[in-house]
Amino acid sequence: MTIADELGRRIAGMRYEALPPEAVDWAKISFIDTIACALAAAPEAGPRIVEKVLTPGGKTGPSLIWGTDRRVSSLDAAAINGTAAHALDYDDCNNSLAGHPSAAVLPAVLALGESLGSSGRDALLAYIAGFETQARVAHGVHLHHYEKGWHPTSTLGIFGAAAGCARLLGLTPERTATALAISVSLASGVKANFGTMTKPLHAGQCTRNGLYAALLAREGFTASAEAFEHKHGFLNVFNGAGNFDAENILAGWADPLDILAPGVGLKQYPCCGSTHSAIDATILLRERHGLTPERVAGIESVTHDRALAHTDRPLPASALDAKFSVQYCVARALMHGDVTFEHFEGDAWRDPEVRKLLGRIRARPHAHQSDGMYEHFQGEVIVTTTEGVTYSARVDQPLRGPQNPAPPDRLEPKFRDCAARALRADAVSRVLETLRNFESLDNVRELTELMAASVKARSDTRVAA
Amino acid sequence: MTIADELGRRIAGMRYEALPPEAVDWAKISFIDTIACALAAAPEAGPRIVEKVLTPGGKTGPSLIWGTDRRVSSLDAAAINGTAAHALDYDDCNNSLAGHPSAAVLPAVLALGESLGSSGRDALLAYIAGFETQARVAHGVHLHHYEKGWHPTSTLGIFGAAAGCARLLGLTPERTATALAISVSLASGVKANFGTMTKPLHAGQCTRNGLYAALLAREGFTASAEAFEHKHGFLNVFNGAGNFDAENILAGWADPLDILAPGVGLKQYPCCGSTHSAIDATILLRERHGLTPERVAGIESVTHDRALAHTDRPLPASALDAKFSVQYCVARALMHGDVTFEHFEGDAWRDPEVRKLLGRIRARPHAHQSDGMYEHFQGEVIVTTTEGVTYSARVDQPLRGPQNPAPPDRLEPKFRDCAARALRADAVSRVLETLRNFESLDNVRELTELMAASVKARSDTRVAA
Repeated sequence: MTIADELGRRIAGMRYEALPPEAVDWAKISFIDTIACALAAAPEAGPRIVEKVLTPGGKTGPSLIWGTDRRVSSLDAAAINGTAAHALDYDDCNNSLAGHPSAAVLPAVLALGESLGSSGRDALLAYIAGFETQARVAHGVHLHHYEKGWHPTSTLGIFGAAAGCARLLGLTPERTATALAISVSLASGVKANFGTMTKPLHAGQCTRNGLYAALLAREGFTASAEAFEHKHGFLNVFNGAGNFDAENILAGWADPLDILAPGVGLKQYPCCGSTHSAIDATILLRERHGLTPERVAGIESVTHDRALAHTDRPLPASALDAKFSVQYCVARALMHGDVTFEHFEGDAWRDPEVRKLLGRIRARPHAHQSDGMYEHFQGEVIVTTTEGVTYSARVDQPLRGPQNPAPPDRLEPKFRDCAARALRADAVSRVLETLRNFESLDNVRELTELMAASVKARSDTRVAA
Repeated sequence: MTIADELGRRIAGMRYEALPPEAVDWAKISFIDTIACALAAAPEAGPRIVEKVLTPGGKTGPSLIWGTDRRVSSLDAAAINGTAAHALDYDDCNNSLAGHPSAAVLPAVLALGESLGSSGRDALLAYIAGFETQARVAHGVHLHHYEKGWHPTSTLGIFGAAAGCARLLGLTPERTATALAISVSLASGVKANFGTMTKPLHAGQCTRNGLYAALLAREGFTASAEAFEHKHGFLNVFNGAGNFDAENILAGWADPLDILAPGVGLKQYPCCGSTHSAIDATILLRERHGLTPERVAGIESVTHDRALAHTDRPLPASALDAKFSVQYCVARALMHGDVTFEHFEGDAWRDPEVRKLLGRIRARPHAHQSDGMYEHFQGEVIVTTTEGVTYSARVDQPLRGPQNPAPPDRLEPKFRDCAARALRADAVSRVLETLRNFESLDNVRELTELMAASVKARSDTRVAA
């Protein structure tokens, strides 16, 4: 059996009744987090431009554009909602993927579920099947795949989207394998475009293309069953001979489910995950020693060079650039004791106070860093005060997942803050409650009808046509 | 200036008046050839499945699905027509690209031109700008890019589609550069899926995505100006350090235009271009020595190993597989003195006569092959007769382009044969005449309105819904 065939067999064989209850709980947490992030991005230019380009002339269909009351085709909705979910770089993370698991899978699964009238349980199962698939492919290609410059959220997330949609469509093992094989030919996304609107576009593109592959496979479209292991297939072309381990893809499937270990990390700050340990360490030092910008002569931010490769931006030149600047994030953490939306809005990145502080912040890699698969989120911050005293703090795992759960009191305020940017205040609690009881929905449209009825006046959330 | 910036400046600076007349002539020849191939594919399952998946519920828009009278959005039309143009693997070739230049560029340019109401001249200029751009990027990455397993028609063709559409939209140099940079993140397509419906899907995907990138850039979407040369950009991620020459991209721009040298090759047989020299050599031997299958004890087909890598298929297992089997194509050439559509239709690949002959055909690479950029189309065929006599023939360049023009009498019958599969016989001449005078069109819709009015009864050209 080829890799695609074997994955197809396992995806088609998954059953809701066999899922551990904690996996369903974590899937619902991810749904809440992902939709929160997409709603927060409703006023952002990136997803609104994607909407304008994909749906000229007011095209309509069965699937909701989150944060609006418009319905379009499932493919277009997936592309727009995927871009929105990742637009603020605030959506959930997964260490196996080295990326954002839900922006890749959920928009496609929900958009398809709306067109099929799927139940909440079927959508949860599809999402978990997609999550597991992309994580297993990741185990075969990482971390070389990531370090080389691919954006795994997109280049691997497409397999999650295709698997999830294939499961929701109830495709046979053979057609599920074909959906994955088609996805090999649609996979794309490089890290050169980090810090621009094209990074979130990757998420929209992969979730749309995974759905596209599943819909093509359903109709009898063909692709090579050897698309992964072929000498001109995914492993050899994207990674190169000697830079992957095909056996790791199939070993350990769902044992335990990847959504449980290593699990989902929920971001506490709306900026690149590779800056979070430095932010945490800075806030720790600020609180512990009562630090203020005036008292600080210099700061060293020490992170893994895998992270530093895309976050060493001493003087960001745009709001988006600032989200990927570890120096900027450390400056904000020191100034405010938190990093929030407003630090990445409008001209905040030009703030003279932060510019002054940036001149005193240096970023460098760990001198003795570990190369372990999950070690690249470590961060250390060393502050020297104007009195010549040095303080330091180190954080190993800033992203909260099943092994290191986020305090339960953090998810609800995040959802409320985010949702308030698109939904009326009086409706937010009902949407949250519906998401918390997702497995009880007979039809996932119950959620999206509620979301559509809850949007604020559309003029707030749209770019000029 | 970055590579994207410099390409943007050159693309935006091109003028119709400055084009050599022969470039316009060759562009029109490519339009005729490309639309012929797409019309011939109108009854094929691949493009019809793409149409069904992309346009559920009868979506409408400004751009024609060639071979039908339906109009849909420009993005959907590009995806469907691009898939159709390459579905039979009969469309034109270009040696710089090592792929199919027009299926990547023309569907996007014409679909966009219809929505804008562009003139024939503007569409011709856009097409030539796109052709030049993809060829120049190819000169920086080939042939490593091709040998590694990428499908250049798609991974490089996307830059042609983006450049052509940016030119037709009249984007500034900066926004043209952004369209190319976005395209870096949408480029995809691997050779593992050759011989399946996913290969033509690559063409549809790249032409649609190049148009998508240009439309996004027009609206102010952002991407990195360094997307080509960045350490995590196109050159380093797709090819890898040491496997490209960035200077070759900008050197020699339009001097001469790539559409004139090496130019366009027009296929004479509806199967993979890497089999054509062996077909030509077989037909030559058949005619010279009056060979028949009964007189042949064994055949050796000797081609470049770059070509053999995807055409060594001793016993094809489907009609599409047969298009990529050099053994099958040689067998048909010996049996019939030609290779035609009917050899790849229905169960022709199972024909007992051809199966019997396949057992006597061996394929192997040249013992002393040249590694030159354009040398991989060489083919030699050695036939041993039942009387023990050996005959051989060798063909260096089977594909006719400007340096080795196709006999003029070959293009018109090809167009007529192909068009007859979708258009009424009485309308074919007028469509051909309109294409031959393309530069005189005030609005490219004059062509597509004529095509729409010329389709045969739709039931002939559609899969069941």
